[in-house]
Amino acid sequence: MSESENFDIVVVGAGIIGVATAYYLQKNNPNKTILLLDRYLAAGQANTAMSAAAVRNMFASSTNQLLTDTTIKFIEHVQEELGYDLFFEKCGYLWLLSDSQFNSESVQMWMKRMEASGIHYKAYDKQQLKEMMPGLNVDFQGSEEAELMNLKEVSYGLFGGDCGVLDPTRYVEFYLEEFRKIGTVKPRYGVNVESLILEADPKLELPGEPFVWQNKRVIGVKTDKGEIRAECVVLATGAWANELLDPIGMNSKTKVKKRQMFVVHGAENEGLKQLLSTKGFNEVDMCPFVIMPSAGVYFRPQKQEQGFWIGCGDKLGREYKYIQTDDDLVPESAYYENSMFPVLSAYFPDFATTRPVNSWAGSYCYSPDAIPFVYYENGVLVANGASGSGIMKADAMARIADALYRGLPEAELYGGKKIASETLTIKKRNVEIESVVI
Amino acid sequence: MSESENFDIVVVGAGIIGVATAYYLQKNNPNKTILLLDRYLAAGQANTAMSAAAVRNMFASSTNQLLTDTTIKFIEHVQEELGYDLFFEKCGYLWLLSDSQFNSESVQMWMKRMEASGIHYKAYDKQQLKEMMPGLNVDFQGSEEAELMNLKEVSYGLFGGDCGVLDPTRYVEFYLEEFRKIGTVKPRYGVNVESLILEADPKLELPGEPFVWQNKRVIGVKTDKGEIRAECVVLATGAWANELLDPIGMNSKTKVKKRQMFVVHGAENEGLKQLLSTKGFNEVDMCPFVIMPSAGVYFRPQKQEQGFWIGCGDKLGREYKYIQTDDDLVPESAYYENSMFPVLSAYFPDFATTRPVNSWAGSYCYSPDAIPFVYYENGVLVANGASGSGIMKADAMARIADALYRGLPEAELYGGKKIASETLTIKKRNVEIESVVI
Repeated sequence: MSESENFDIVVVGAGIIGVATAYYLQKNNPNKTILLLDRYLAAGQANTAMSAAAVRNMFASSTNQLLTDTTIKFIEHVQEELGYDLFFEKCGYLWLLSDSQFNSESVQMWMKRMEASGIHYKAYDKQQLKEMMPGLNVDFQGSEEAELMNLKEVSYGLFGGDCGVLDPTRYVEFYLEEFRKIGTVKPRYGVNVESLILEADPKLELPGEPFVWQNKRVIGVKTDKGEIRAECVVLATGAWANELLDPIGMNSKTKVKKRQMFVVHGAENEGLKQLLSTKGFNEVDMCPFVIMPSAGVYFRPQKQEQGFWIGCGDKLGREYKYIQTDDDLVPESAYYENSMFPVLSAYFPDFATTRPVNSWAGSYCYSPDAIPFVYYENGVLVANGASGSGIMKADAMARIADALYRGLPEAELYGGKKIASETLTIKKRNVEIESVVI
Repeated sequence: MSESENFDIVVVGAGIIGVATAYYLQKNNPNKTILLLDRYLAAGQANTAMSAAAVRNMFASSTNQLLTDTTIKFIEHVQEELGYDLFFEKCGYLWLLSDSQFNSESVQMWMKRMEASGIHYKAYDKQQLKEMMPGLNVDFQGSEEAELMNLKEVSYGLFGGDCGVLDPTRYVEFYLEEFRKIGTVKPRYGVNVESLILEADPKLELPGEPFVWQNKRVIGVKTDKGEIRAECVVLATGAWANELLDPIGMNSKTKVKKRQMFVVHGAENEGLKQLLSTKGFNEVDMCPFVIMPSAGVYFRPQKQEQGFWIGCGDKLGREYKYIQTDDDLVPESAYYENSMFPVLSAYFPDFATTRPVNSWAGSYCYSPDAIPFVYYENGVLVANGASGSGIMKADAMARIADALYRGLPEAELYGGKKIASETLTIKKRNVEIESVVI
């Protein structure tokens, strides 16, 4: 047998889910040795850093509502009560909707379900929106371009005041610092996990093991720096889960698309400056995170750089593809110019004279129902498939992962709410399909 | 624009799902031109021909029960009433179960759900099984080997008398002949569909189309023999759905594993001859399809060749992998010898002196809930993900596909039972997770 190191738990992936899970596992299992691994040279450098870094509790499924609402409340607690600045700004989310969208069965159901769960939101009409956001174009009447582009005219705004934006790196660092305070093992970076080691249990030392009639479990990971054995391997690898699970015959059930973000600065533009400091929606006199009624285009205010991050939840026409090389992560300027920019500047004409000053791309990891997976099977504790909302679900997912590890029937989320530990598993999954996906 | 042929519907894949769907579409839409395509040189030559070609209605989910029960009744109708011999033998399925398996929550639930749906089954105890199948070993007491191999001792048998085996090629030919009687377009073989053509609708003839703000739909397929346009593209490609859907950003939600079948002849073996003509289970005095309590090993009687097809529903340890080359389809003799054979010969010692005379491998296409998908989005009518049971669900799936094509809220299955047409879609999916998967 080759030499290998031993730990009780190895956490693969130091993105937001990985660091949060490592922290709760260590906190509630103080005698366990927990090694946190990442292939990048620091924590939170991969898709966590590439995200829009916004948090919302405005979901339609009660599961996502619970996961995000408790996580956001924890984020507030960290910043307000623990005094750890996450640059969390409660600017809110604003969905701009056409008349037919607002009155559709799915939006009406969404609102009803938010009310049932006590998720705060407010509906604004066109007139109110126009007054609060003078730069918003709510009148496409007679515009041939708008018709050609299938742009739906804004009639309503659905606003969630408990939503906001934060700095993902700060949030990763919070968990990491807390984890390092109580942990005994130093996290390791620049370590690439190449495969999970699946072994017969018990091992018979026969050639060709494991056979189909043997019990099997994952007993560690093979990395580019050697083998590491652990009683439990936590997989917090997000978009890369398939690379490790497929070869041992576990189905991650997730799939990946590229997503891109383009940065536009507003300091030199009167209209955008005014938009950035939009009043009336929130207590911080800031522009909310805004989702346009058409084509999935959205923007997020970025206060520190006086700008906006512009993204697009494109669906049909954007290939599913595992992102494996740096080439896959090059943002496409033609995509911004031809697909996103025309939509953005039709609704907010002040953007018409701007150009992106920065851009990046990452991987978006879809689960089949847009609800995350947290399950513990065959020695692997998987926490992934957050479907574009890992940051806003991280705290809840990590607590559920820890409850599964400890064999508890329920996990206690921040604020005391409980959830059955098996809710997000594959085998005992008990969730509604999420319909409000960006 | 390049020259291309035009049809109303093009059906990609002439496996059992493809031919059944082509038939019902043509029957109920007599004025539509329907082109059936396959990359092999005849219909039903790919995974349909590689399957165990057995049919069962013994499922735990009411959806799978309905799909299979109506399809099996249709198969009986074809053979008995239409006089088209499918070599369908109603030999039954026999699940051999240990005491703890039989009394487990999941098996008790399964039985309860079959009763609720009127699925006939019968439970036999160990003594009865031993009398009917003298060659079955129901006593592992003191066997170190059985203990080492985690073999569970047989205590019960769960038998479904409406299940059986058939000739998949005959079944494919039935639909194909019926389709050709009413169709106006000759099926084409040896045509490889390389991609779906996704186009902006309407097309603006601008470079870079389709943009994110444009409506898009699939308007045909690109093949190695040229472009074919159709108002509706039916995807009945089973394990290969991802190759066509991923590039246009549609998620098939299915995943593929290799499955293997090994053939053992019994004519020269007294014990196996006796097993082949087992009496008491069915009216045809034939051995049922038998599933062993351990490791997923099963066998299926093959009357014409006086033998058995032996397979294994292996789970953990068998990689998920798209089967793309002939190399992937080589059966592994070491796998039979080390993994399947020891289990088989422990339960049925008469197999101990036999060796396989033939073997093959194919692709098994898993859906996330082991329930098939049938949905019509963006011009693509997808029917796949039957999760190892395409033959036994084909008739129902094809009727549902046709109902979706015609925009009907319900599909009428054989025998008059109705099912909401959207039951198997992605967006309005309304199914229980299937727990009885081989």
